[in-house]
Amino acid sequence: MTKEQDLELVKKYQKELRLISNILALLAWDLETYMPKSAANARAEQTAFLEKFYHEKINSKELFESLEKLRKENLFGEDKIIIEKFYKDVVRAKKIPKELVEELARITPLSFSAWQEAREKNDFKIFQPYLEKIVELKRKQASYIGLPGHIYNNLLDDFEEGMTVEILTLKFRKLKEDLVKLLNEIKNSKKYRNQKLNFKGWVFPREKQMDLARDVVERMGLKNEFSRIDFAEHPFEVKVGRGDVRITTNIREDPMFSFLSSVHEAGHGLYESNFPEEYSFNVLGNAPSFGLHESQSRFWENMIAKGVPFWKYYFHKFKKEFGVNDFEKWYEDINFVNPSKIRIESDEVHYALHIILRFEIELGLLEGTISVKDLPKIWNQKMKELFGIIPENDKEGVLQDVHWSQGYFGYFPTYILGSIYAAQIYESLKREFPQIDREIEKGDFSRISEWLKEKIHKHGKKLLAEEIIKNACGEGLNPDCYIDYLRDKYLKIYN
Amino acid sequence: MTKEQDLELVKKYQKELRLISNILALLAWDLETYMPKSAANARAEQTAFLEKFYHEKINSKELFESLEKLRKENLFGEDKIIIEKFYKDVVRAKKIPKELVEELARITPLSFSAWQEAREKNDFKIFQPYLEKIVELKRKQASYIGLPGHIYNNLLDDFEEGMTVEILTLKFRKLKEDLVKLLNEIKNSKKYRNQKLNFKGWVFPREKQMDLARDVVERMGLKNEFSRIDFAEHPFEVKVGRGDVRITTNIREDPMFSFLSSVHEAGHGLYESNFPEEYSFNVLGNAPSFGLHESQSRFWENMIAKGVPFWKYYFHKFKKEFGVNDFEKWYEDINFVNPSKIRIESDEVHYALHIILRFEIELGLLEGTISVKDLPKIWNQKMKELFGIIPENDKEGVLQDVHWSQGYFGYFPTYILGSIYAAQIYESLKREFPQIDREIEKGDFSRISEWLKEKIHKHGKKLLAEEIIKNACGEGLNPDCYIDYLRDKYLKIYN
Repeated sequence: MTKEQDLELVKKYQKELRLISNILALLAWDLETYMPKSAANARAEQTAFLEKFYHEKINSKELFESLEKLRKENLFGEDKIIIEKFYKDVVRAKKIPKELVEELARITPLSFSAWQEAREKNDFKIFQPYLEKIVELKRKQASYIGLPGHIYNNLLDDFEEGMTVEILTLKFRKLKEDLVKLLNEIKNSKKYRNQKLNFKGWVFPREKQMDLARDVVERMGLKNEFSRIDFAEHPFEVKVGRGDVRITTNIREDPMFSFLSSVHEAGHGLYESNFPEEYSFNVLGNAPSFGLHESQSRFWENMIAKGVPFWKYYFHKFKKEFGVNDFEKWYEDINFVNPSKIRIESDEVHYALHIILRFEIELGLLEGTISVKDLPKIWNQKMKELFGIIPENDKEGVLQDVHWSQGYFGYFPTYILGSIYAAQIYESLKREFPQIDREIEKGDFSRISEWLKEKIHKHGKKLLAEEIIKNACGEGLNPDCYIDYLRDKYLKIYN
Repeated sequence: MTKEQDLELVKKYQKELRLISNILALLAWDLETYMPKSAANARAEQTAFLEKFYHEKINSKELFESLEKLRKENLFGEDKIIIEKFYKDVVRAKKIPKELVEELARITPLSFSAWQEAREKNDFKIFQPYLEKIVELKRKQASYIGLPGHIYNNLLDDFEEGMTVEILTLKFRKLKEDLVKLLNEIKNSKKYRNQKLNFKGWVFPREKQMDLARDVVERMGLKNEFSRIDFAEHPFEVKVGRGDVRITTNIREDPMFSFLSSVHEAGHGLYESNFPEEYSFNVLGNAPSFGLHESQSRFWENMIAKGVPFWKYYFHKFKKEFGVNDFEKWYEDINFVNPSKIRIESDEVHYALHIILRFEIELGLLEGTISVKDLPKIWNQKMKELFGIIPENDKEGVLQDVHWSQGYFGYFPTYILGSIYAAQIYESLKREFPQIDREIEKGDFSRISEWLKEKIHKHGKKLLAEEIIKNACGEGLNPDCYIDYLRDKYLKIYN
């Protein structure tokens, strides 16, 4: 085969793998939104079949041979990058036996259903055997990959290339100290001691909540023509293909939940919508890391949609729809610092502590020092230590997150990385456009969207997350920037 | 390979092909319900990819060899039937080149979008180039199959095994004569000359229409746990997998449209829900013909849901929701005979004429005696001849049906076959259970559902349609039974 033929073959494989992933994304979206309950087994078979197909394809001998040949060729520009990235993916996939891939694919939809049922019935035992199996399979998977250091590194690397337990442990320790210090300052403020939610008990009709969620998502730039918003137990975002980005939300007791979770998921959605068209069917049409992906959602959710300028625009809409009448009090409710049981309902200051709790548990499960059966107890112990509260039931405790039911171990830390990146992005944006608050106050987010697209989205996976952040913000991952942001914002409220 | 190994291999292929079909069904359902508009190209790629995969699988050399070996073995019972049916499918698939399969798979989602846009803008020209391409490809496909007789037989056989243009032409000629005769009697009745729709202009709120549609579907036995109902431009039914049967509906001017179309699609849905579990992943888990499939939907829609006993139960619900107040007038509105432009809004008596119109046009397109560009003109001419009316625009004329946009040529005749079977089923059911009307009046359809399951559904594709009808009704396809049914019912109304 000539070099051109090898390139053609590699191109074909990338496209087919992407198509399989897109179809899998639709199966997953449907599972969580509209699929009838009794289809869980059928969906498990369909998913396992496609996962196996994907695995066979990425493990194809001809693909590997062409990639090896091409690596020795004198390639330039994007071709060179694509071949290297794709080769890395292929080598990684080759390490995991087909049987394990299939087994994981078959168990996860069932495990998801079991998790749903366990939540409904508030009974961890329903979920336990599935989670035990998943932990067992993920440990197996990790052992096949064989990266140096902690066994967890093998899973973490899937979501955050190059990140290690060793680095995270160090960064998280410092972060925890800084957060606890800040929380103590907040808790010692007069404001905190007398605080209560001003709009608790108010009625926020469901349909109006959804109208506002649709409004903000559209205003951010996630248009109807290429996206949609549906209900699901757990808010998420998924790209089904070019021109097809979907987010979900849910109505909860907190009246801001649907609105802010939609902003969050729309942040993900904008990222996925802005990859260059020519990356649609190659390995560059992705985010380089889940941390960078999370930075987009958390940036919009926290730095923008919980900020003063944003509410200067949106307050009058909420006033009109729900009758909320005091800007100050409304703003304080939105940024109400209080230990909460639910991660996705957490305030910004406590948020990273929720993640650290999960990170520590995941390490224990992978090391084998924590058993699945003890999880409810351990969860509650850690909640007591970190937050000073104990969930009343497992639904509000260990059963609250979807991730483990789907085998996503190693994902949680990326939320913290995303928060840190988000703070850095916010700082850079404000430095570059000192007038940006004036635009936000008018409900005009176009400069922000454009900046994110130019600085971050359009690169796809061509650069590493760290490189993209360096180019955009002038420096790599910097937790101190995040702490500065939190201190600056929250010590103004809690003074 | 041993016989057992061959059987194992054949089993594996059946399962994989079924899984691919199921996934394709989800892609199709999503395309027509929730997919964002700008995803048309992406969806086309995904569909084409899976169609190609299906085609490669069914054309696999090892599968063909195993089937050929097994045909020579001494197999018994279902194994023997499965091998023969599967072999026939494989031989048929082998005749169509991969490129054609892919091209058709790629064009149909685009063509569907073009059809939607053409309808919206009431502009046939938008759809024309796509339809021209599809006709060209379907003619190619037909020429590859090479059945004896009319070129259209090759497409018809896909939907109604063994049926031919020659048989249909004869049966349809007689049917047309009988229908025209009946229509003349109706039109000459005093009733007809003075008739008008009694409830025209009444308000039937959308949500209440949907509530009633959900109610009747559930009462028929299509439960929430394994089914769902959504909106789509065109009502349809699709099975995504075991425990996952979906129907769609739409709200139109006719207040009964959503209700009756839901009954119709639920009839399909019940059929697909009742295949034995052990057929889930083999070739027997299907209807033997589209005509028999249509018999299920048309039976429920017409014989049951437009009958007097049914309305003795449902009238009070419609009275409560919409205030309709006169049983006789309501029943007459539901069975109002009047030439209509829209097939799926047609009364029972005119219905077959709509099909005959389409059948004649399809023959012309396949023979090459009709050009796509002339379709609007020809459509309107034929409407004038058969119905005495001309549609005001193409949306209500040639653009009304989804079928051609998806390449379904040869499908329409199965609606007439289904109507005939439905009348035969109705007659047998009443003969077997003279008290059945009493149960229907109470809203109890369980005996009907059970009878259909036992006599028809549970056989899957194990028997031919004709055999199933013979066993259930004592004779094969009998158009006279359908005419008798129509005469009996409608000459009572129009006397």
